[in-house]
Amino acid sequence: MPFVVIMAGGRGERFWPLSRMAKPKQFLSLIGGKTMLQLTVERIRDLAGITDTYIVAGAEFKDLILEQLPQLPEENIIIEPFGRNTAAAIGLAALVLGQKNPREVMLVLPADHYISNVRNFHEVLRSAIVAASRGEKIVTLGITPHSPETGYGYIHRGEQFDTNAGIPAYQAVQFLEKPDYTRALELLASGEYLWNSGMFIWRNDVIRAMIGKHIPSLAEGLVEIEDSLGTEHYPQKVEEVYEKLPKVSIDYGVMEQADNVLVIPCDFGWDDIGCWTALDRYMEKDEDGNILQGQGVLLNTTNTSIVSPDRPVALIGVEDLIVVNSHDSLLICHKSQAQEIKKVVQALRDNGFDDVL
Amino acid sequence: MPFVVIMAGGRGERFWPLSRMAKPKQFLSLIGGKTMLQLTVERIRDLAGITDTYIVAGAEFKDLILEQLPQLPEENIIIEPFGRNTAAAIGLAALVLGQKNPREVMLVLPADHYISNVRNFHEVLRSAIVAASRGEKIVTLGITPHSPETGYGYIHRGEQFDTNAGIPAYQAVQFLEKPDYTRALELLASGEYLWNSGMFIWRNDVIRAMIGKHIPSLAEGLVEIEDSLGTEHYPQKVEEVYEKLPKVSIDYGVMEQADNVLVIPCDFGWDDIGCWTALDRYMEKDEDGNILQGQGVLLNTTNTSIVSPDRPVALIGVEDLIVVNSHDSLLICHKSQAQEIKKVVQALRDNGFDDVL
Repeated sequence: MPFVVIMAGGRGERFWPLSRMAKPKQFLSLIGGKTMLQLTVERIRDLAGITDTYIVAGAEFKDLILEQLPQLPEENIIIEPFGRNTAAAIGLAALVLGQKNPREVMLVLPADHYISNVRNFHEVLRSAIVAASRGEKIVTLGITPHSPETGYGYIHRGEQFDTNAGIPAYQAVQFLEKPDYTRALELLASGEYLWNSGMFIWRNDVIRAMIGKHIPSLAEGLVEIEDSLGTEHYPQKVEEVYEKLPKVSIDYGVMEQADNVLVIPCDFGWDDIGCWTALDRYMEKDEDGNILQGQGVLLNTTNTSIVSPDRPVALIGVEDLIVVNSHDSLLICHKSQAQEIKKVVQALRDNGFDDVL
Repeated sequence: MPFVVIMAGGRGERFWPLSRMAKPKQFLSLIGGKTMLQLTVERIRDLAGITDTYIVAGAEFKDLILEQLPQLPEENIIIEPFGRNTAAAIGLAALVLGQKNPREVMLVLPADHYISNVRNFHEVLRSAIVAASRGEKIVTLGITPHSPETGYGYIHRGEQFDTNAGIPAYQAVQFLEKPDYTRALELLASGEYLWNSGMFIWRNDVIRAMIGKHIPSLAEGLVEIEDSLGTEHYPQKVEEVYEKLPKVSIDYGVMEQADNVLVIPCDFGWDDIGCWTALDRYMEKDEDGNILQGQGVLLNTTNTSIVSPDRPVALIGVEDLIVVNSHDSLLICHKSQAQEIKKVVQALRDNGFDDVL
């Protein structure tokens, strides 16, 4: 049985005012009744038990995680003392799991993605686990793009590689940062590029060796922490060392540098639910294309999505809006500008509205 | 000194969700810090003292009125046991004031209008008082129209009438109901029509006689109440009789029927503040034409008016909206559809949202 590492350190400012410092996106029920974290854990239940599932997050979210995942052993929460990007978080998780079984496969999964075809997701993961377990390759999942998205990184797939694991895999020849729109159109048209999903499958000892090779300063820090594992000194040691670790993403620090990366093209209805408009794809609409989570009256209103759990709303003569009426703040945003919510959150921060962030 | 009768029985649904059953428009601070009722009383302070000022309203507003007008003697609140339109309310006020001085002039003023040129308003009223005090004529103020409004009644002015009171008055030859747009354009173009302001100046005995002549069933009801005035039986008697009174406006019941009505054309910056968009004329705007009563961040937002006293707002990429974020409900309305708020209030009522109405 592989270990599952769920990365739950994200902020999700684009879901303000429901998401906030104290409750980022992965802890919200955006689709159906369950939170994104709960859905993520449920989704891999057939592949790994809860005792083999680990969550990486900041200390401030520990209680929230235990509340949302009451079956999870408390020690399976791996606390990041500071945010140091994904390479450090993955390195720390690999360190902790290496104590259990250094040759076991780890699945690294973001806590805040949505997948509609779970059966196919499992098939892909089973193949990826087989491929990774041999110890030569590390595997990432690349999403077959259906639109020229500028919000994702892309992976250039090269030659097919026979994993003998059922599902075709390819050499990953290049990791690209988020492209501009013209470039995204080219990448889409070529048919050779996949979206970087942030899902990784590798053996514990392999990723540790690759961190050692490509991010030596991180590897040194991890060694410093290693002796304290399982002792009373661990919390203090990890805090002391973690502060100095390099802030680098696993994509930039390892995946882009390595020559042993396989990518499996996937088309299992993946969605990173990156902003409020993404929810439109999963919520029931009225005949005018409106979504109303809450109660109220809509008159001459079209294609508008409303979240107002506490107070009734009345909308008259508006279209293409996102309205989020939280207990302490109100967002009204044209759907075409949902990406600007981050700017507004920053502006609220700059203007001293910290108690609503 | 004339008596002033302020009509404060209106509902003001078009200012939902700030206005509501329990707090109609006249009791709200829409402009500046004072409520419409307070502004109305303040505006006539030079013409009548507070002890000669009477407020007609439902019993449920008595406490609110005393709170907003702490100087007002409690007995100067004339309670309508039921809403029976303006003729009954004015008749009851005339009955009560007739006990004090049946030949004194009464100024009847709505509680929820705004007047910017108060000095001119006073000049007009002084002339109207002189004209009305002779006892032959009743006087109404007609607002010189500057646009083809379909939301007001109109008064057709006839020949000029010499009141010897300084300001020109005219015979009022016809009272018209709210016109459609084409008709409103014609009325405006003719130069002979004025908006019906709902402000009346007449002698107490004269209006009572005219009610007797034109609405005899109302006059009979008032006589029934008369004997109980000043006794312990009054509250019960008024409740008993009032319920049976005809529901008719003073315009339809008296003004349209009478042949002794003068109208004084006025241009003192009158505004009935009929809906949210009217406030745009009196509030300070930012350089993008936005009004923000409350706190928050506006990004790519233009010509939008926001009232959010309790919670910060963030608006992104919207224009021409009215946003009213009250303690228990939220309105978002395109400015072009501000007149539809009444429909939404009705829909909320039909759907059982009585606690936010």
